[in-house]
Amino acid sequence: MEISIAVAKTNKYAVSESGDTLEIVERPNGGVSVVLADGQTSGRGAKAISSMVVRKVIGLLAEGVRDGAAARAASDHLYSERAGKVTACLNILSVDLQSQTILITRNNPTPVFVARNYLVECITSASVSIGTNRNIRPTITELPLESGITIVMYTDGIRYAGDRTGNPLDICLLLESMLEDENPTSREIADNILAQAIRLDNNRPNDDMSVVVLRSVPGEFDQIRRMSVRLPVGTGYIS
Amino acid sequence: MEISIAVAKTNKYAVSESGDTLEIVERPNGGVSVVLADGQTSGRGAKAISSMVVRKVIGLLAEGVRDGAAARAASDHLYSERAGKVTACLNILSVDLQSQTILITRNNPTPVFVARNYLVECITSASVSIGTNRNIRPTITELPLESGITIVMYTDGIRYAGDRTGNPLDICLLLESMLEDENPTSREIADNILAQAIRLDNNRPNDDMSVVVLRSVPGEFDQIRRMSVRLPVGTGYIS
Repeated sequence: MEISIAVAKTNKYAVSESGDTLEIVERPNGGVSVVLADGQTSGRGAKAISSMVVRKVIGLLAEGVRDGAAARAASDHLYSERAGKVTACLNILSVDLQSQTILITRNNPTPVFVARNYLVECITSASVSIGTNRNIRPTITELPLESGITIVMYTDGIRYAGDRTGNPLDICLLLESMLEDENPTSREIADNILAQAIRLDNNRPNDDMSVVVLRSVPGEFDQIRRMSVRLPVGTGYIS
Repeated sequence: MEISIAVAKTNKYAVSESGDTLEIVERPNGGVSVVLADGQTSGRGAKAISSMVVRKVIGLLAEGVRDGAAARAASDHLYSERAGKVTACLNILSVDLQSQTILITRNNPTPVFVARNYLVECITSASVSIGTNRNIRPTITELPLESGITIVMYTDGIRYAGDRTGNPLDICLLLESMLEDENPTSREIADNILAQAIRLDNNRPNDDMSVVVLRSVPGEFDQIRRMSVRLPVGTGYIS
């Protein structure tokens, strides 16, 4: 089996800095975690918040702290630093090879989709963003690590794409049709969802947009880990 | 222009944990950094060292500390923690969009290759690994961020591949022939170098092996950042 994770990310139109921060880190007892935070508003202020949150979480995960505890720590840290006045959405998606599970940790009202083969389920359980008071807890979903799973996680820039034009994005339908028609890679799914979201905002994203797709693919693979980053460098592009 | 980074990584044969640790992080003022550490020996002990070093470096880079200072801090940290008795090799490869430069920071005698179009140069300046005494400084090479650059950075598992069979890997020659023949992607270069190294060790890597390839590709690209991870999950595979 191989775990394949793809991320696609763009900024709000005409804003050089994305308020979304995303990092992928190795877990000390095996596996990887994707940490995604979306700071309140957009631009430089939001970036400072989301990167502070992600930095806190990845530092703790790298020390072996469990995902739920890391999310709570990030909430308390943000609460202390900003006196409860600033909020951020936080998602952690982990493949834990020690417990042989996939963990979805949400402090984010935006849903997460989980598909087993072609059957798409939507995780919409109530979940609050971090930083606004003490005792904020994440919503955690745990799945056995088995092949044929697809997980789609994204920020609200994608959730609300097309809202202005009254033509919202139905990610569940889009994902179902992709999974039924062909055997798409995580890269194809992520790129397709982001492209549709940008199109629905008339090619001028109304907010920062990030999407993460994880697939567990059955089969025999070489024992090689691979990681890739593609970063466009153009006028005005900052991060 | 687009920056494209590809990493390929495998473990020493029959050892479940890699002593190499590699993380890619966003720079707070724009760009990305690849941090690669190779702990002394292999297996669990080496992993603890290399991940401690990488964690220190990425934490500092995320706070805006410059690469050279982060490398020195990691050396002092390792020296204090292990009383100067343990060493690690450290490389940092950064694309800094603020200064519009590529920075290669080495505490590693293993060379780094830099190609401008087809012309391959080898950075072999003397460089010592971290952790064994105070005042260890990295060797830093700075290049303007322009298109047509290829950088290949790797750990000594690749450097010494084939040494036992008296058939070492000539990465310079391999890279030259790839760049001349076709226009390979960073992924193709990384996969090819790792495959050759494994083959020269008779398909049983004699040490942990990691290779990082960065290319700056000319042209117009969509303003989308992409990141991918592929992680094989099999019997005995831990990290």
